[in-house]
Amino acid sequence: MSANQDRLAQQMAFIIEADKLKNIFRQSYISDESRRENDAEHSWHLALMAITLYEHANDPDLDLLKILRMVIIHDIVEIDAGDTYIYDEEHKQDQALREQQAADRLFGMLPEDQAKSFRADWDEFEAGESPEARFSKAIDRLHPMLLNYLAGGKTWNKHGVVATQVHAINQKIGRGSDTLWAYAQDLIQKSISEGILPAK
Amino acid sequence: MSANQDRLAQQMAFIIEADKLKNIFRQSYISDESRRENDAEHSWHLALMAITLYEHANDPDLDLLKILRMVIIHDIVEIDAGDTYIYDEEHKQDQALREQQAADRLFGMLPEDQAKSFRADWDEFEAGESPEARFSKAIDRLHPMLLNYLAGGKTWNKHGVVATQVHAINQKIGRGSDTLWAYAQDLIQKSISEGILPAK
Repeated sequence: MSANQDRLAQQMAFIIEADKLKNIFRQSYISDESRRENDAEHSWHLALMAITLYEHANDPDLDLLKILRMVIIHDIVEIDAGDTYIYDEEHKQDQALREQQAADRLFGMLPEDQAKSFRADWDEFEAGESPEARFSKAIDRLHPMLLNYLAGGKTWNKHGVVATQVHAINQKIGRGSDTLWAYAQDLIQKSISEGILPAK
Repeated sequence: MSANQDRLAQQMAFIIEADKLKNIFRQSYISDESRRENDAEHSWHLALMAITLYEHANDPDLDLLKILRMVIIHDIVEIDAGDTYIYDEEHKQDQALREQQAADRLFGMLPEDQAKSFRADWDEFEAGESPEARFSKAIDRLHPMLLNYLAGGKTWNKHGVVATQVHAINQKIGRGSDTLWAYAQDLIQKSISEGILPAK
């Protein structure tokens, strides 16, 4: 096998392994409430949000390609580590360790140079400090809020989540986009008014 | 409502409408054969293939951001037009018209400047002439072949598709990447050897 064929074989093995993301189901329902959303669909929807909404980022000089690279791979670790519900304090304890180990294994399937660059993008997303990571995390938080609102608050109600929690967890949206945080606060207010999210 | 809020409202309406892509099911099964794949998952998997494999494109100077913009939106028209199976000659007759009308409605939900740029990306993908469109179409063809191979030829067998058809339909992969077309031809040979795809 040539060096190039060997490289392609590693890349295809990673792409095939990544197919499992389609079976990692999140707490959010898709907007017609028929079933829960999986991580692959969520990642696509974030990528669409990124290309549609990045003009609203606080930083006007964002690298959109960097954002797309991050949102496309940001949940791949959940193939091994599973999805952790953002309001689940118990499982959030060891989430970081589980996800680091998953990143080692999954990105480690790629040729060494790509393993490093994919891992660097994932680490940057997780750190949430660069303008691109702050914006990516902003849409990653806004997306389930939006689906939840569209699905009549189904997941919030199932888990007994109230508006003060939704506000506290999601205010970091403002670190990436003041405009989207204002939109999110409107969604919280509408959810309270429509009786699908208890005020507290 | 301010001009900026009005703009955001149009963008969010488009993003919400796009959620319907999660209910457009393709002929391909996901690799564990448990169910058919939907267009949102497929689009995410293509984006992952793009960032992993674009080094194998025939043209070394590809614009990866352009490729990602195209693959993220390439199937959105199927919300209105439905999925047309690539071996279904009857429904391919009016596919172009159905998809043009869908593009008018769906991209037309966006603010005018974005409606134009999303439509231009989609038109470029459909035309399949630019280096970025040729590569995007190459992975769009390779992806279902790969899933079909992993799922034991399930969809090929269901529709009575034989290797000569798979070869004829997919040889355009070589317009985007000779390396990926060589890989695809190996997949066809392996599928014949393993008895999951009749030679003719």
